[in-house]
Amino acid sequence: MPNPTAAMLVIGDEILSGRTRDSNMHFLAQEFTRTGVDLREVRFVADDPDAIVAALNDLRASHDTVVTSGGIGPTHDDITADCVARAFGVGIDVREDARAILQAHYDRQGNQMNEARLRMARIPDGATLIDNPVSAAPGFTLGNVHVMAGVPAVFQAMVATVLPTLKGGEPLLSQTLRIERGEGDIAGPLGALAAEFGDLQFGSYPFQKNGVYGANVVVRGTDGARIDAAMTRLSRLMDE
Amino acid sequence: MPNPTAAMLVIGDEILSGRTRDSNMHFLAQEFTRTGVDLREVRFVADDPDAIVAALNDLRASHDTVVTSGGIGPTHDDITADCVARAFGVGIDVREDARAILQAHYDRQGNQMNEARLRMARIPDGATLIDNPVSAAPGFTLGNVHVMAGVPAVFQAMVATVLPTLKGGEPLLSQTLRIERGEGDIAGPLGALAAEFGDLQFGSYPFQKNGVYGANVVVRGTDGARIDAAMTRLSRLMDE
Repeated sequence: MPNPTAAMLVIGDEILSGRTRDSNMHFLAQEFTRTGVDLREVRFVADDPDAIVAALNDLRASHDTVVTSGGIGPTHDDITADCVARAFGVGIDVREDARAILQAHYDRQGNQMNEARLRMARIPDGATLIDNPVSAAPGFTLGNVHVMAGVPAVFQAMVATVLPTLKGGEPLLSQTLRIERGEGDIAGPLGALAAEFGDLQFGSYPFQKNGVYGANVVVRGTDGARIDAAMTRLSRLMDE
Repeated sequence: MPNPTAAMLVIGDEILSGRTRDSNMHFLAQEFTRTGVDLREVRFVADDPDAIVAALNDLRASHDTVVTSGGIGPTHDDITADCVARAFGVGIDVREDARAILQAHYDRQGNQMNEARLRMARIPDGATLIDNPVSAAPGFTLGNVHVMAGVPAVFQAMVATVLPTLKGGEPLLSQTLRIERGEGDIAGPLGALAAEFGDLQFGSYPFQKNGVYGANVVVRGTDGARIDAAMTRLSRLMDE
C-alpha cells in the first residue's frame, strides 16, 4: 500500500516578503519522512482570505492530510480560523473549552483576557482542539486539516501531538552517493537503473562548489534491502 | 498603481523530503521585495508531471509573473521543460541555438555531448533562452513563465538576468518594531492603527525565545514618509 499523502499550507507574508527563512516546512518534511507520510506539496500564501480558502479546498481534496502553519494569533492579520470555517462551510465562534484554556493561562501569568485574546478561542464548528503546551492558544483539527501556529516552537509541539494520530506508512529510507562527475555523464546509466528499480525513487541533485561539480544521487524507498541493492549497482556503474 | 504580482513554483523532491532546506524561495523573495514585485504565492511540488502542469496553469493565470526553479538538468527526473510545453499546449524539441551553447561549453571542458546532455537543449516552441553563465545549460521564458535551474548559484544568476526585464513597481520598504509584550496586549491598538493606515501593511510576528516573548511588528509600504508616520504613532501607542 502506498504511504498516505500530505500537503502543507503556510499562511502569511513573513516568508513571502523575504523577511525570514522558512523553518516549519523543513521541520515537517523531516518528520513526515521519518514517519512514512508522503509530503507531496507545500504552498505559501499571503494574508488574503480568498487565496487561503482556495488553497485549503484544493489541498484538502487532493491529499489525505493537510497541515497549516500561521495566522492563528490574536492580531488583525490572524485570519486562518475564519478561512478554515469558510472553506468547510461551517460556523465559527468562541468556544467554551478553548476560552477556559486561555483564561487559565492568563490567570497563571497575571494577564487579563481581552477582545484580541478571545479571538484565539474562536474555533470552527465540529473541530477538535490541538494542545499548545508552549503558549496555551490551541490549534484545531477539522476533517483532514490540522491548523497549527506559525511560531516554530509552538508548531513543533503541535506536530508532535498530531503526528501519532496520523496513519503513517513505512518510514521513507534513503541513501546518498556523492558523485564528482557532471550529471550529463551519469544521466544515461542512472536513468536505466531507475527504470530497473521501479519501486524506488532516484533523485539527482547537482552541486557546484569551489570549482568542484557533481551530483548527489539519492535513492529512496521503504525497503532497505532493495536500496542496498540499488546502491551497490549504482556504485559499480559510477566506477566504470 | 499596485505593484505587479508574482508566484514561484519549486519543482522536485529534494526539499519536500526534508533532505535540504530551501534557499531559492528566500533569495527570490528578497529580490522581488527590493525591486517592487509582489510575491503572492509559492508552491513546492514533487516530480509529478500532472501536479507540475496543474500548478503552472493555475499560477500563470493568476499572477503577472511566474518563476520556476528546478528540474531542467539532464537526468530522468528533469521533466520541467516537457511539463511547461504541455501546460502551454506547444511542441518541444532540441533547439539549435541551445544545442550550440551546450556544445561550445562541452568543447571548452573537453567533454562529449551525449543523449542526456542534449535533453538540456529541449526548449518549448516560442520560448526565449535565459543565459546561464555558470554551467551553460540555458533556462527559458515562455509567456509570463520564467524557467530556471534549481542549483542556487545558477538560479541566482538567472534571476539577475530576468529581473531587469520585469516591470517592477516601487520597492517595498519596511520598518520593524520589536515589542516585548504579548501579542494579545498590543493586538487592539495595532488593529486600529492598521485600519487607519490602510495604504500600509501591518504584520505582527510573535516570538518566544529564552523566556522572553513578544512580537516584531513590521510596517510595509512603498511610501517611506507614511511608514515613518505610522512607526511614530506605533512607538507612542506601545509606550502607553
